[in-house]
Amino acid sequence: MTKNFLCLGLDSEAEKLPKGQTQLSFNQAIVEATHDLAAAYKLNSAFYEAQGSKGWEALKKTIAFIHQQSPGMPVIWDAKRGDIGNTSQQYARAAFEELQADAITLNPYLGRDALQPFLDYQDKTCYILCRTSNPGAKEFQDELYLKVAKKVVQEWNQNNNCGLVVGATGMQELQKVREIAPNLPLLIPGVGTQGGLLTEVLRYGKDSSGGGLLINVSRSVIFASSGKNFAGAARQKVLELIQK
Amino acid sequence: MTKNFLCLGLDSEAEKLPKGQTQLSFNQAIVEATHDLAAAYKLNSAFYEAQGSKGWEALKKTIAFIHQQSPGMPVIWDAKRGDIGNTSQQYARAAFEELQADAITLNPYLGRDALQPFLDYQDKTCYILCRTSNPGAKEFQDELYLKVAKKVVQEWNQNNNCGLVVGATGMQELQKVREIAPNLPLLIPGVGTQGGLLTEVLRYGKDSSGGGLLINVSRSVIFASSGKNFAGAARQKVLELIQK
Repeated sequence: MTKNFLCLGLDSEAEKLPKGQTQLSFNQAIVEATHDLAAAYKLNSAFYEAQGSKGWEALKKTIAFIHQQSPGMPVIWDAKRGDIGNTSQQYARAAFEELQADAITLNPYLGRDALQPFLDYQDKTCYILCRTSNPGAKEFQDELYLKVAKKVVQEWNQNNNCGLVVGATGMQELQKVREIAPNLPLLIPGVGTQGGLLTEVLRYGKDSSGGGLLINVSRSVIFASSGKNFAGAARQKVLELIQK
Repeated sequence: MTKNFLCLGLDSEAEKLPKGQTQLSFNQAIVEATHDLAAAYKLNSAFYEAQGSKGWEALKKTIAFIHQQSPGMPVIWDAKRGDIGNTSQQYARAAFEELQADAITLNPYLGRDALQPFLDYQDKTCYILCRTSNPGAKEFQDELYLKVAKKVVQEWNQNNNCGLVVGATGMQELQKVREIAPNLPLLIPGVGTQGGLLTEVLRYGKDSSGGGLLINVSRSVIFASSGKNFAGAARQKVLELIQK
């Protein structure tokens, strides 16, 4: 892929950090080493919340660092939020004002009004979970993911700021989503550690203009080496990916 | 209702706090004034995340305060989480180790493996979203909520630590859920500000032994007064509720 499609996931699990690194210092080094090669960064909130308020601080400061290091680089807060009205308003505020993220991932189970406070931020992107890449996805999503895609295209995307999350593990599903949503940005996790195939994702995932696709890689890049040169190793891994 | 059913929601939105109060001091005062009358407390994460790391700290310290003030009192982290495997593991750690919550609310959209890391904590309770109380709930849940209830009863409740979240706005739905899940604990929001009817919830929501029900009230109690006597006013409101 070209670097236009690469989203780097900073799933910076505290226990896996190279010796002497904090979540923040690790993220900063990875960002410094890769920002000229990435199209976006994604931070999954779980890895930071597990560290309590200091994790939250690392999350916030990492986002600020990316914005400072690479103005205009989109940062996705992978939070999979979704709650009722006044509560979602507070989550939206956490995402876009407190953390200053440019985009968020959202769970559609509660319906549109639950997500409206996020959708109302017209200059932010809302990636809505459609078909995930885990084994249990089939339990409820088989009957639901195309309906979610349709709802988003036909009703939720009034502000032209919606995208969909589609796992890289099912190419048939990816094709079907693209038929329904030829122009929505897609965020595709599951390449790398989770086993999705890069070539196929590139073949079936692009929008009608040949763009609109972010392929997320996380652990296979950021933990490429646990040695002192972890950032250089991550850069090397990214170079390999974008030359594929 | 009797006090056995009352869950008090500490949705302590920063902008609504009485003058001079922080989220933590407000929560402490409310807990001191009500803990002899409540069966559980619930903290919706959104109101704390909107305040960044200091909100997270208030969340954590409130949970610790409740445990100290009233040993054995269950505290629910209303977080509606759900993510794939290793990520859910981190969220479970945030909930049960970092925050020391006794229970969490979870979103079922990603399927069982997404929730397994939470279910594995055998002495914690996992309240899984089934039918929510917001207008948009019907978009996907109408066709799904009974399937979710069945899955939880038949497959997910291996450790006997699952419950369901069912909104107080639809009594037919509540009855149907109780038919499928006669013995699961139910957490029922939507009484009070959201308009659900207490008498009907009590009639249809109890388990087969006449218990297994937590009815959550939040704003109508904790913001009963914005004056200096806000805690006394909250206690008065709780007394009115449990005498109904």
